[in-house]
Amino acid sequence: MDDAGASLQAQMGAMGRAARTAAATLRLAEAAARTRAIEAMARAVRADAAAILAANARDVAEAEAASLAPAMVDRLRLDAPRVEAMALGLETVAALPDPLGAEMARWDRPNGLDIARVRTPIGVIAIIYESRPGVTADAAALCVRSGNAAILRGGSECLASNLAIHAAIARGLAEAGLPAACVQVVATTDRAAVGLILGGLDGAVDLIIPRGGKSLVARVQQEARAPVLGHLEGINHVFLHGSADLAKAIAIAVNAKMRRVSVCGAAETLLVDSADAQRLLPPVAAALREAGCELRGDARARSLVPGMGEASDEDWRTEYLAPIISVAVVDGVEGAAAHIAAHGSAHTDAIVAEDQAAAERFAALVDSAIVLINASTQFADGAEFGFGAEIGIATDRLHARGPVGAEQLTTYKYVVRGTGQTRP
Amino acid sequence: MDDAGASLQAQMGAMGRAARTAAATLRLAEAAARTRAIEAMARAVRADAAAILAANARDVAEAEAASLAPAMVDRLRLDAPRVEAMALGLETVAALPDPLGAEMARWDRPNGLDIARVRTPIGVIAIIYESRPGVTADAAALCVRSGNAAILRGGSECLASNLAIHAAIARGLAEAGLPAACVQVVATTDRAAVGLILGGLDGAVDLIIPRGGKSLVARVQQEARAPVLGHLEGINHVFLHGSADLAKAIAIAVNAKMRRVSVCGAAETLLVDSADAQRLLPPVAAALREAGCELRGDARARSLVPGMGEASDEDWRTEYLAPIISVAVVDGVEGAAAHIAAHGSAHTDAIVAEDQAAAERFAALVDSAIVLINASTQFADGAEFGFGAEIGIATDRLHARGPVGAEQLTTYKYVVRGTGQTRP
Repeated sequence: MDDAGASLQAQMGAMGRAARTAAATLRLAEAAARTRAIEAMARAVRADAAAILAANARDVAEAEAASLAPAMVDRLRLDAPRVEAMALGLETVAALPDPLGAEMARWDRPNGLDIARVRTPIGVIAIIYESRPGVTADAAALCVRSGNAAILRGGSECLASNLAIHAAIARGLAEAGLPAACVQVVATTDRAAVGLILGGLDGAVDLIIPRGGKSLVARVQQEARAPVLGHLEGINHVFLHGSADLAKAIAIAVNAKMRRVSVCGAAETLLVDSADAQRLLPPVAAALREAGCELRGDARARSLVPGMGEASDEDWRTEYLAPIISVAVVDGVEGAAAHIAAHGSAHTDAIVAEDQAAAERFAALVDSAIVLINASTQFADGAEFGFGAEIGIATDRLHARGPVGAEQLTTYKYVVRGTGQTRP
Repeated sequence: MDDAGASLQAQMGAMGRAARTAAATLRLAEAAARTRAIEAMARAVRADAAAILAANARDVAEAEAASLAPAMVDRLRLDAPRVEAMALGLETVAALPDPLGAEMARWDRPNGLDIARVRTPIGVIAIIYESRPGVTADAAALCVRSGNAAILRGGSECLASNLAIHAAIARGLAEAGLPAACVQVVATTDRAAVGLILGGLDGAVDLIIPRGGKSLVARVQQEARAPVLGHLEGINHVFLHGSADLAKAIAIAVNAKMRRVSVCGAAETLLVDSADAQRLLPPVAAALREAGCELRGDARARSLVPGMGEASDEDWRTEYLAPIISVAVVDGVEGAAAHIAAHGSAHTDAIVAEDQAAAERFAALVDSAIVLINASTQFADGAEFGFGAEIGIATDRLHARGPVGAEQLTTYKYVVRGTGQTRP
């Protein structure tokens, strides 16, 4: 290892130790102190708006000079309304019910032992993300709300923005008397820092949350030496059952695909029941095209919609994040579920159906984190679930699935109260 | 890779695919069918008792010929009462409430969306364990109860026993019309099979549970390419607070250490409050010695108990699983919690105290999976918690902590019911 590597390793190791110490304090801090900290962060973000925007302007200028893709520059860019939205987001999380200490269950045993399952923080959470600087504020708020120390490693392209936001976060923590190391931002663009975090910082990291593109998530899942809460792509389906109401089918398909094409809850594939595809597909396809969407279909879909392009095998497993949708005609709920099991990413899938039995059958068969009946896939969002904010939509099967808010960033322990019991 | 390696890889890959297919069926099977299967397994175990004992005798003979440690041979050995206990264990799990399909939470959103969090199976669970053949039956029962397909890889030294038990399990599954691949046993002693399971069998494995010694768990945590539910050692503490009742202190310390020294819930360290160590330690030490326990203490403990051996730094982090206990005098609840944080394994820790405020302070400060007040650490056991059976005590922080029973082997999904909602 060269000198720079050794220095980075020392620096990251110190960060891990500081986070662990802060976590021990934060875990025992009163809910009111954590609330005060998040409220103070919101005030500091507002007070620092000019500094945050100036830092962001430097990031944007550098990104443009480096010819970053315009979509990426747009995700990076902040303006006054986006900074205000960040402050409001912090206030929303400050107002959330505190998850810690809640008794999730409590029961007595015949021998008189009183067993309580009590919600506790996870400990130290490392979040590795890209682009959007708003994640820095959301992640800080959710981690403090849930009593976890956070190590945040955002994209290199928004380091100045993240550091400016972090300055506000640090003032909020100080105002509430909480340790600065409750929320730390990795202040280097050296990609080796990511490798060190994935190594777990000598056991200091309890959970790694990757939030970003496929290659980031794949690297994390390959290299991580600590548990990972995965946020994979959303290859989401809207299935129009033969019993679907046409107006709902049109509204939901267009909204699921086109409301925002770049979010992970956007639909990428439209499945249409062969039982009534003639009635459903042509008008839905027309509405999607009208909204500016390109359609790529299988043979049966193309036979019903003149001029539709051909979908390749690759299309069924592509997260376009663009105004393109793949279209397949399938045979009933079983056919739709089989297509989703073969090609989906277990993120979010929806059925449009008036036949309630068919809708419930779909909900049972499709084993995705979120299954919707007669609603748009774009509701896959923590705020829409009532969680206030989220750190992403988990697609792994362990610990938490779907939107990951403050409650999902907790674990539990058992407190067993006895009167001197010994085991026979 | 040589031919044998390629053949093993093909065989394990096929096992993974079969498990995945079986999991899809099992997930949708009625609770009654899963109950019938486990009941039929119990009957088959009883009917096959002679064959299971004969297979076990071969394992024991080979283990003795190979000069395995007597404690290991004892763990491996079955007799008629142990086979009956296995059948009773299956019946207990068959009688457990079915965890699947339960609504863990349900709420409405202002836009009319009805959100339900519903309990579902994890999918395919690989369990890697050592010695005790009874784990084969417990694991099969818990996985079927929770709707998960199981891939079981027991110790090489009990392969014949495990295959004989598996024959009974397979008959139970067949009787209930469930696929044979719901429970598979790896039928080779080739250690490369473990490496392939840790590799995730091409994504077929959703969760790996290691159950065994430190070296097994360490290997799993190092190599696993799928989520792991860790079962680390139990370096468990009993803390005698200054307010402790002496009779309770003696009974709990002796029971926690000596009831069974080889279980993970056994105490390994006794902590005594300096506030009243003179009153508490000598009689508790005498009772432990009387029960056949060796004591190794720090300077303060040795000054109170003549003839006590000296504890090295290593003693504080040693899981003896033997009639030895380390003893330290600490300063109050804070001192005990600091010792536990520095040396414990976050498994199970107990306080003996009449001062309720001190006891509750200990329960808050000590961040272990199980914290007991005035009760023995040997209650760290799924059956004692009312879970029927367990696959072990989880010491990781994610997904599940403490005893892992059928409910802890589940995850959830969201079913969102709407009436045509689109997102503005």
